[in-house]
Amino acid sequence: MIIVSHRGPFTFVRRPDGSFEARRGAGGVVSALGPLLAGQGHLWVAAAMTDGDRDALREGAAGSDEIDVVLLDIDPALHRLHYDVISNSVLWFLHHDLFDLPRRPRFDQRFREAWEAYVEVNRIFARAVTDRAADGDVVLVQDYQLALVPGIIRVARPDLRVLHFNHTPFCGPDAIRVLPDMAARELCASMGGGPAGFHTERWAARYRASVQEVLGFEPPAFVASFGPDRVALEQVAASPETATALEVLEAQVGDRRLLLRTDRIEPSKNIVRGFLAYDLLLEQHPEWRDRVTFVALLYPSRESLLEYLAYGQEVEQAAARVNERWARDDWLPVIVDSRDDYPRSVAGLRRYDVLLVNPMKDGLNLVAKEGPMVNQSDGVLCLSREAGAFDELGDAALAVHPYDLEQTAATLHAALSMDPAERRTRAATLKERAGARTAHDWLVDQLRACGVDVDSVS
Amino acid sequence: MIIVSHRGPFTFVRRPDGSFEARRGAGGVVSALGPLLAGQGHLWVAAAMTDGDRDALREGAAGSDEIDVVLLDIDPALHRLHYDVISNSVLWFLHHDLFDLPRRPRFDQRFREAWEAYVEVNRIFARAVTDRAADGDVVLVQDYQLALVPGIIRVARPDLRVLHFNHTPFCGPDAIRVLPDMAARELCASMGGGPAGFHTERWAARYRASVQEVLGFEPPAFVASFGPDRVALEQVAASPETATALEVLEAQVGDRRLLLRTDRIEPSKNIVRGFLAYDLLLEQHPEWRDRVTFVALLYPSRESLLEYLAYGQEVEQAAARVNERWARDDWLPVIVDSRDDYPRSVAGLRRYDVLLVNPMKDGLNLVAKEGPMVNQSDGVLCLSREAGAFDELGDAALAVHPYDLEQTAATLHAALSMDPAERRTRAATLKERAGARTAHDWLVDQLRACGVDVDSVS
Repeated sequence: MIIVSHRGPFTFVRRPDGSFEARRGAGGVVSALGPLLAGQGHLWVAAAMTDGDRDALREGAAGSDEIDVVLLDIDPALHRLHYDVISNSVLWFLHHDLFDLPRRPRFDQRFREAWEAYVEVNRIFARAVTDRAADGDVVLVQDYQLALVPGIIRVARPDLRVLHFNHTPFCGPDAIRVLPDMAARELCASMGGGPAGFHTERWAARYRASVQEVLGFEPPAFVASFGPDRVALEQVAASPETATALEVLEAQVGDRRLLLRTDRIEPSKNIVRGFLAYDLLLEQHPEWRDRVTFVALLYPSRESLLEYLAYGQEVEQAAARVNERWARDDWLPVIVDSRDDYPRSVAGLRRYDVLLVNPMKDGLNLVAKEGPMVNQSDGVLCLSREAGAFDELGDAALAVHPYDLEQTAATLHAALSMDPAERRTRAATLKERAGARTAHDWLVDQLRACGVDVDSVS
Repeated sequence: MIIVSHRGPFTFVRRPDGSFEARRGAGGVVSALGPLLAGQGHLWVAAAMTDGDRDALREGAAGSDEIDVVLLDIDPALHRLHYDVISNSVLWFLHHDLFDLPRRPRFDQRFREAWEAYVEVNRIFARAVTDRAADGDVVLVQDYQLALVPGIIRVARPDLRVLHFNHTPFCGPDAIRVLPDMAARELCASMGGGPAGFHTERWAARYRASVQEVLGFEPPAFVASFGPDRVALEQVAASPETATALEVLEAQVGDRRLLLRTDRIEPSKNIVRGFLAYDLLLEQHPEWRDRVTFVALLYPSRESLLEYLAYGQEVEQAAARVNERWARDDWLPVIVDSRDDYPRSVAGLRRYDVLLVNPMKDGLNLVAKEGPMVNQSDGVLCLSREAGAFDELGDAALAVHPYDLEQTAATLHAALSMDPAERRTRAATLKERAGARTAHDWLVDQLRACGVDVDSVS
């Protein structure tokens, strides 16, 4: 079996003695698959992402005892066009409805050049597979950065069993028409040439309708969500770092209710509207003033893109406005923390009374499962119905309409006011459902979609 | 038969002697239906839009010998919420994909208040119908400003045969989820309770999918486009005003090719990208410098909305940038004319070599039919495939991808370079198709959708 993903399972960091340490990387796919594949003789193809990765690669040290990793050293200028321009500024925007369409996108020669770079990087990944794959190998290609890899592999090596799994939403048939024709066709032809997987039926349905629109046929698609790595999560939850972070958090919150969110600073996460809804809650329900603290643990993301820097400023301003309006001497209504501190996030998840997850659109949203899995306060989950995880957690969570501030404020009020018995029942259901689908299940579903006899691998 | 539309067939203007003149109003529905209904004893219900309308109404002079008009005097504050806020800033934006979703909309109490105003104005229209309709009358309700009227009428007067005809595109099932739930349900329930008409099958399909998403059933929908009023258009074309405008135009353009557009200043018309594509054309094809003039006849629109003022500035800046970059002493590459001068528009339509109609989305786009109908230069039509009219004119026009500047520039080049024989053939086909569907056909289709025995009215 060969896994192909943009980001690999390890980041290589040079030790003081000159050797390299293989650190488990961030990202949903990695944390889901890494532990499963360790020591099984599978191959993982990914791009070198850091200077450490590239140094280790050049010195022949980009290996690991756990997983056989093939890191690809991609020309930085080419990689930037592939990643920043096409993957993150076009495809991500398209799948999450982030374009201000009267103004963007404007497809011109620069788009064509960047698209050629996207094709070329996808070819480099495909070649790394076709050069190494044994007859009949299963190849699991991950996510929107590598959407053309399956198509290229199928032409070069018809013996391989290739699928694509998309971790984002997929745009609908109106939005796919925004892409230049040749790009839309290339994308749909590559993904549609074999099974394509999604975290929920909603994205699979949009994908089918889009391929139907562009190519005139309905492609095969399957649904397979995954869940957090419970063991790893509980290890962090039990760590001294988390215990310390929890103490700090308790001191900040005191005997108030803790309303929590933890997200990358990313427009689709809908962070600004979250603060606006909280502002509305404090306005409409004076009883919550000084009785709740909104802690937002936010991780800077894609800072090379102007759109993300601008959105980050809007987030800060929205939080500041809430504080200016409602703060009292001894109460700060919103605490924004943008340090990259995972134990602090886990401490927050352990302790929240209400967890707000209100994306405009989200392929799955792992936080919506991680929270209920480790929470110890019978916390209430307020979850956007536009997150893939909503289809699994649904009625045990409180549904959030991400564009409707009044509905969101009313949902927060309902969550904060919920009686202990209902909190307990819902939290128990959420905990069960959050753990119902493991990375193993997800992997097995992918193998089944490739026609593998699963008993031989599970 | 009762027609219900937001804007009526006449605007009342006070004469110097104190009496009122009923002037034929602007707008597609009016120019299509007005001449058909004159003197037939039908009723037309519409809002008083101007001070003249309201004055004529109060003085009992808001009548006409031609059509029996009922003008409604709506409280200005209520009307503003109905029209500016809900109709034009929410529903229009939704149906044309104009929202910058990470930032807008933000549905709060103000939206609720405005929605109540929208409901109330729709009730006022419905009541005007139910108070006057005879048993079994056919009621044809027009457009997105009055989407709740059919539902209200059906409850009050089940004997009436009511339909809704939507002149805009209709949003798809992802976009309808952006609306607050109760608004989406109310809208879909009203339109879905009877036949709903659209200019093209694409909008009908989106509408069916949206109602299916919101209410869980597939509603009846039909397709019926219309065409320009040929007689009225040819009258204007033959007028001395048009002849004068044509002379002015000829003097401006000289022996250069005339590239024309004429639109309201409206983000969905995609005017900025039109200039950017022209800029790209001049960059990539030096042979067109000083050989073509882009005349843009633009009508200010909805100037009470900030978004429209901002877009108007972007339009001006884009035109200015092209002129700064390419102008020569005796050649202005872009001429923007924002005077409200209909004969000048008709002169432009008569004379263009290439007509650019590149909306992001457009219910029908009447200019794409008016142009070929009166053009005398075997002009080439470059038409967005996202305009409803594209489905009728299709392969006789050159298809424009509205987001793809390079494709648009290449299409303009192909249009400007087309040999005379192909121009002639295409222009003849376009002329035929542009006139193929009349307002009468459109009216008959609506009556048929209401179950009327059409022979008795046609």
